[in-house]
Amino acid sequence: MKTIIIGGSATGMGVAAKLKRLDPKNEIIVIQDKEYVSLGACGIPYFVGDNFSNPETLIARTVEKFEETGVKVIKNTKVDNVNFESKEVFFNNESLKYDKLVIAVGSKPIIPSIKNVNANNIFTVNSKEDGIIIKNKITKESKVLIIGSGLIGLEMVENIYNSKHSKITIIEKADKILKNIFDEEFSDLVENKIHDKNITLIKNDEVIEFLVDNKNNVTHAKTRNGETIQCDSVILSIGVLPNTQLFKKTNLEMELNGAIKINQYCETNIADVFAGGDCCSSLSFLYKNTKTFYLATIAHKQAKIIADNINQSMSNQFMGGLGTTIIRFFDLELARSGENRTFMENQKIKTREILIKDKDHTNYVSDQEDLWLKIIVDNNTNEIINVQLAGKNKSVLRIYGLVSLIWSRVKVDHSLEQIDLPYSPPFSRTTDIIHIALSKLV
Amino acid sequence: MKTIIIGGSATGMGVAAKLKRLDPKNEIIVIQDKEYVSLGACGIPYFVGDNFSNPETLIARTVEKFEETGVKVIKNTKVDNVNFESKEVFFNNESLKYDKLVIAVGSKPIIPSIKNVNANNIFTVNSKEDGIIIKNKITKESKVLIIGSGLIGLEMVENIYNSKHSKITIIEKADKILKNIFDEEFSDLVENKIHDKNITLIKNDEVIEFLVDNKNNVTHAKTRNGETIQCDSVILSIGVLPNTQLFKKTNLEMELNGAIKINQYCETNIADVFAGGDCCSSLSFLYKNTKTFYLATIAHKQAKIIADNINQSMSNQFMGGLGTTIIRFFDLELARSGENRTFMENQKIKTREILIKDKDHTNYVSDQEDLWLKIIVDNNTNEIINVQLAGKNKSVLRIYGLVSLIWSRVKVDHSLEQIDLPYSPPFSRTTDIIHIALSKLV
Repeated sequence: MKTIIIGGSATGMGVAAKLKRLDPKNEIIVIQDKEYVSLGACGIPYFVGDNFSNPETLIARTVEKFEETGVKVIKNTKVDNVNFESKEVFFNNESLKYDKLVIAVGSKPIIPSIKNVNANNIFTVNSKEDGIIIKNKITKESKVLIIGSGLIGLEMVENIYNSKHSKITIIEKADKILKNIFDEEFSDLVENKIHDKNITLIKNDEVIEFLVDNKNNVTHAKTRNGETIQCDSVILSIGVLPNTQLFKKTNLEMELNGAIKINQYCETNIADVFAGGDCCSSLSFLYKNTKTFYLATIAHKQAKIIADNINQSMSNQFMGGLGTTIIRFFDLELARSGENRTFMENQKIKTREILIKDKDHTNYVSDQEDLWLKIIVDNNTNEIINVQLAGKNKSVLRIYGLVSLIWSRVKVDHSLEQIDLPYSPPFSRTTDIIHIALSKLV
Repeated sequence: MKTIIIGGSATGMGVAAKLKRLDPKNEIIVIQDKEYVSLGACGIPYFVGDNFSNPETLIARTVEKFEETGVKVIKNTKVDNVNFESKEVFFNNESLKYDKLVIAVGSKPIIPSIKNVNANNIFTVNSKEDGIIIKNKITKESKVLIIGSGLIGLEMVENIYNSKHSKITIIEKADKILKNIFDEEFSDLVENKIHDKNITLIKNDEVIEFLVDNKNNVTHAKTRNGETIQCDSVILSIGVLPNTQLFKKTNLEMELNGAIKINQYCETNIADVFAGGDCCSSLSFLYKNTKTFYLATIAHKQAKIIADNINQSMSNQFMGGLGTTIIRFFDLELARSGENRTFMENQKIKTREILIKDKDHTNYVSDQEDLWLKIIVDNNTNEIINVQLAGKNKSVLRIYGLVSLIWSRVKVDHSLEQIDLPYSPPFSRTTDIIHIALSKLV
């Protein structure tokens, strides 16, 4: 059986690797628009921040390693068209027929339609080349403008600040940092940390024009509210969208945002065509709605499911995502999982919630730090549907416990209140923050 | 209603505090054999190790604070007898009648019958006074013999080593450190750490005699295998037993180890007599057997249950313990939860298990460390019944997730394999060690 995979990142190469393991006789061809495959894009901010110096470290597995297993990789090649009727993929004036097709084209950064947005010193955070150019072009103590303060924007802030001692300005369109991911109490902690670091944060505003010099380098950004921000470099991190324009004119079913619709088997509406990862809308675990997660963890899981189902029809199902996220921002750590506020409000889900501020461990062991926990419960099902944590010292790894409770769909009752969590002075208090929260929710 | 509580530690004072909160009119009398109540005994090793200097920090809440809420504390008083028929407690040639009695007498260190075991420089780790005397008597660079290598023994080793630069010898009767708590692979990590620190570890051996000087101070310990160990101080940490000898001749039902039998309401076999904490045998969550946990977390929970049930009969039930434990030993961390090997073997429970050695987070963020995880599954129920973790950097806080999975009695299947755990380079890898383990257990 011949499988063609369009896209050589987490989903695509995950499918390739698993499918070869399942049956070495599987013929697998990956068509990839870059020189390399298996980019760990999550590592780009840490490369920029000098956590490591060799950009090849970003590559989880090389083309050569894949080819040793018999996977064929057609590099530096853009797919021009796909004919789902004849089961053909067209590229470089050639075409290849497939038995099964996997669309794993991922996402691409949103580029706003702003004058001079194509200037030389405006960068996105998407490819290995992006990482290399940012690391080279942003000089020590330069002025950097970060547009958008989502997870990648914040990771870039931390890493550029630490490695380049840059003067950083963040501009955020919304009235809060991380608005759709964390509630205000948690956004405030991030905003306080930004202020502590003397980083400028402009909210409720957006860039409407870049001013460039005669070498097409941005020198200033003008904002809707009339600010003029001087800058040597600009990082565009306002978000991503599914990279699916190739399929716009086909009968492949997509969401309004361009995400490919898939079922639990990662099948699209077209026979023998699978899709997974950032280019898809996926099942949300709790309420069985769909959303686009843009998370490497989801891509990895769907890759495995696609490979299983190519190997044996409908043998593995995607159970859904929770949008579990964890981030370090300087010494502050945040983690969250579960449904978001917008969905809860739109669906008029009746909830109760509690916010606890406590300490991560006993007062008599050094480095005791604040720890915040919010838990939201669906009053109808009595299940936990959202958790948010903020702290230091890796104390937010308690998210593992809270994700497990959400995933298990355990009821918030007197039994759960007694869950036997660990205690020892360097790690926790005898009554853990999770116990305190649960006792107020039963 | 008049409640008498015998014992002023975690369970006793927990009952007192909760009962007053439930109804300030409750008359509560605590009879405590010490000058103080609410000792956080878990803090003693950290006090000895100079994590803090004021021993009063070990006291979670003072007698005065309790008395302000109307709880009466009779200090420095040993109960001589209890008449369950007349509902009377005898002490200091007085007696008091109760409506409800709470036995919260805790545990006491096992003192082996060894010649000269009452020498001046042999210490246990049980009271505030123990902490103060150990801290004063163990001088810098002295020779310390630690007898028993359970959790408290190891915490004492770390703290005495760090603060006193002592030359430490550990003697352990069993063939492995932490034998009944962790499997060999995990014990080995602790033993390696002991060797790294140039601490002497003698296994399969025990002290049979202490040699003392003319001031009744131990100078040497002789062992069964013929060793003679020179020492300036001895810490006895071979374990604890329920402190229940007062009730030996009553009709209070007890286990062979002296633990008071209680039901899920923390009621003893005698009407209006409750018991909880270290002096009891308690329900084990998974298989509904009973055991004595000797854990502050269990004591805290049972205190709340006793108060609830005194306030309103049979209103709260103890759901059971998992024996969840976490410990730091120098930079090594270990955590475990669930049934132990002895029980599994005795009950002939058919299990499958996996041991994974992986890394705590991505290779390109600093301080990546090894992480070990063992998961044991009951083949009959397909539920997780034991987990063990070892690592550094607080990575063992993943125990929160594993405890939650055990507590939720979730089945180990393809659905669980997809649990949406967090990923970000400083915290984890895209495929977390828990995913790796689960994928091999489904």
